[in-house]
Amino acid sequence: MNGGDSALLTDLYQLTMLQAYHDEGLDGSAVFELFVRALPAQRNFLLLAGIEQALDFLEQLRLDPAELDWLRATGRFRTDFLDWLRELRFTGEVHAMREGTVFFANEPVLRVEAPIAQAQLVESRLLNLVHYATLVASKAARCRLAAPDSLLVDFGLRRAHGAEAGLLAARSSYLAGFAGSATVLAGQRYGIPVFGTMAHSYIEVHELEVQAFRAYADALTGLSGPLTLLIDTYDTEAAARKIVALAPLLERRGARVTSVRLDSGDLARHARRVRTILDEGGLQGVDIFASGNLDEWRLRGLLQAGAPIDGFGVGTAMSTSADAPALDAVYKLQSYAGRARRKRSEGKATWPGAKQVWRWSGPDGHIERDLVALADEAAPAGAQALLQPVMRAGRRSAPPEPLEALREHAAAQLAALPEPLRGLEGVAAEQAYPVAISAPLQQLAASLDRQPH
Amino acid sequence: MNGGDSALLTDLYQLTMLQAYHDEGLDGSAVFELFVRALPAQRNFLLLAGIEQALDFLEQLRLDPAELDWLRATGRFRTDFLDWLRELRFTGEVHAMREGTVFFANEPVLRVEAPIAQAQLVESRLLNLVHYATLVASKAARCRLAAPDSLLVDFGLRRAHGAEAGLLAARSSYLAGFAGSATVLAGQRYGIPVFGTMAHSYIEVHELEVQAFRAYADALTGLSGPLTLLIDTYDTEAAARKIVALAPLLERRGARVTSVRLDSGDLARHARRVRTILDEGGLQGVDIFASGNLDEWRLRGLLQAGAPIDGFGVGTAMSTSADAPALDAVYKLQSYAGRARRKRSEGKATWPGAKQVWRWSGPDGHIERDLVALADEAAPAGAQALLQPVMRAGRRSAPPEPLEALREHAAAQLAALPEPLRGLEGVAAEQAYPVAISAPLQQLAASLDRQPH
Repeated sequence: MNGGDSALLTDLYQLTMLQAYHDEGLDGSAVFELFVRALPAQRNFLLLAGIEQALDFLEQLRLDPAELDWLRATGRFRTDFLDWLRELRFTGEVHAMREGTVFFANEPVLRVEAPIAQAQLVESRLLNLVHYATLVASKAARCRLAAPDSLLVDFGLRRAHGAEAGLLAARSSYLAGFAGSATVLAGQRYGIPVFGTMAHSYIEVHELEVQAFRAYADALTGLSGPLTLLIDTYDTEAAARKIVALAPLLERRGARVTSVRLDSGDLARHARRVRTILDEGGLQGVDIFASGNLDEWRLRGLLQAGAPIDGFGVGTAMSTSADAPALDAVYKLQSYAGRARRKRSEGKATWPGAKQVWRWSGPDGHIERDLVALADEAAPAGAQALLQPVMRAGRRSAPPEPLEALREHAAAQLAALPEPLRGLEGVAAEQAYPVAISAPLQQLAASLDRQPH
Repeated sequence: MNGGDSALLTDLYQLTMLQAYHDEGLDGSAVFELFVRALPAQRNFLLLAGIEQALDFLEQLRLDPAELDWLRATGRFRTDFLDWLRELRFTGEVHAMREGTVFFANEPVLRVEAPIAQAQLVESRLLNLVHYATLVASKAARCRLAAPDSLLVDFGLRRAHGAEAGLLAARSSYLAGFAGSATVLAGQRYGIPVFGTMAHSYIEVHELEVQAFRAYADALTGLSGPLTLLIDTYDTEAAARKIVALAPLLERRGARVTSVRLDSGDLARHARRVRTILDEGGLQGVDIFASGNLDEWRLRGLLQAGAPIDGFGVGTAMSTSADAPALDAVYKLQSYAGRARRKRSEGKATWPGAKQVWRWSGPDGHIERDLVALADEAAPAGAQALLQPVMRAGRRSAPPEPLEALREHAAAQLAALPEPLRGLEGVAAEQAYPVAISAPLQQLAASLDRQPH
């Protein structure tokens, strides 16, 4: 139950097209680029993620014997093609933006150059990985911007769309500046800090709430990790008073409550009352952590209202990117056998040719404008090339970067965003980040439009 | 990169709570129920899916040595607890509604009865599986209701949220009445029919569109499966005329075009023009298949406009359930050690105790009303019990049902929906399907509210 490592996690047409390429002897080099056609109305920028997963996929691409047998049994493929498919590996080159980079519509973030069959087959899974990882990183970045000084924790596993979504949500949100995740496997797999509190069920198993608090504190005493008690199961303020009363006993037994968690009701109002109860009870050092249907808007609202909340668990809204659960991400052929290609379908025309994205930043470090140009145009003065080689002959050019380094890069990128783009509201078109198309690229597109088809 | 089989695909608090239960010697039997607290405004019913995946997960639950070592290294767990955790298996009982059953808010669809540690640990993954599979089945059912006579194919892999979402979307949409999926691995894994067309890139690799059509037809000649040609890369109507001109040649070579695909522009207008061109060219038997940002609303609109479209590829909107990308699905403790429990948090109170859902149908077969009652109440006259035993002592009570049987059940369930609920618009509260709470259940809840905490 997962399937992410299977080369059959693809669309059927990829395989039938490969058979046709094979029959026709078409094995020229193709350039495909992955990009987002337009940003959702609620997004002023996107934050790239999922590139390491995409490279893992390319490095391990192969069909196993059971998969080939299954394809054979469908009757849709010829033996000579299946024999050839058995040997298929990814041997191409890849350029990509660095994960954690801010990007915009029409900017290629991943460029694959490989024999047409290889470059074609990987479309579905490359999109599946990069689309979702980026979708969630972009949503999590908005949470980070809305609550720059708060502890943010990914609580999104249970309503993420399946296992891989849960894991990628943990990774993408950490990349975007979350402090960590509740998902244990994300800790094991990615080295992400894991956070946990307690559930209502634990409280309810005990006859009295205070028994649950004491037992939980006892169980965690002497072990690593903070101690967070959930206080909204029955009466939030009454529970806060119980903790004040319990604290001296716990302290004698070697336990210290690090925070309390609110999960229901008017969070700002409860937080204020609980803060007062804790402070008056001498528990100024106990933090307040809140959860429950939070998103970037609610984070901003709570903080603007002055709610004394130190950290937030952000779940479903982040792990499903609920207000924009998909991006218009595509992977398009831009060149075949050395000649640029252009999809010209109504409303879906692409910019042809292998491309580079150039970026200018101001003296204060803020990013100012981008240029999408053909990859073989001369480097413009003062600009940074965002697409860099990351794979050659089917192998990574360098080991994967540590997630911590990517996270620092993402933080620097968010800090470099122009002020209007940092807001949660979608900006008007005239305030959108300027992305220009180079003159040679425009000329190439026009010349392709004049060709017969 | 998937992780769905790992017992660490859970929230950290489950493990710290397990340690506390272990320390306290709490090992009584717990009843947890999985249900949806409220339907999204755009949903009049939900269609259950993901139960087989949930049972697979429970049957294979165990921690492997590397996972235990990693937990040990966190410093958060005691050795005696980890030793005990190594032996943990799921040994409990499960009741569930049959997949493909229509259900409503506050109705338990899955009831787990097991020692508290087992029942607690599995919460995150059970929700992760059943939530998403049901979310997408419910969305796909709306597409089916909007286009009851059309061929519907899942095109949703590339923007589904990760690998598992792509696979579960294929399974859930097939369950809900789609004809199949483009996702090859779903064919291998679930026996779902797979469908494929061709991509724009294939057309663009060839100098002339007509060369691509001919080469593709040649490549598929003599093999199983339909032949669908994509006609919107440059000029949709011109491409249709090329196919008319090409058809006699293809026929002499043993190929027959079964359908053409539209993917951009005004689909209704193009479909009408293409239908005329095909019919006048003697290709009355060639179907028209459409794709491109479709959802249930667009399907209904196209069919109401009389667009001569025979089949639809439905992708992102279905596989992300874009208008409602999450349900308020929860898994709550209802009983521990033989005593009913009730979460009483503001706005999140639950109905306590192990429960059954009873359903009455009318003489015409339509479902009429449900009753949520305590599991030990006497069976009401004329009603069907929706929760049935599916697992005992940690093993399935019966082998998994064939997906085809579940699909037939789903079709019968959709046919039995009262008319107002079949529409795409969310009905007003007074038209919502009636779900009553039994008097003993209400009395139990009230009595629990009077208990000290």
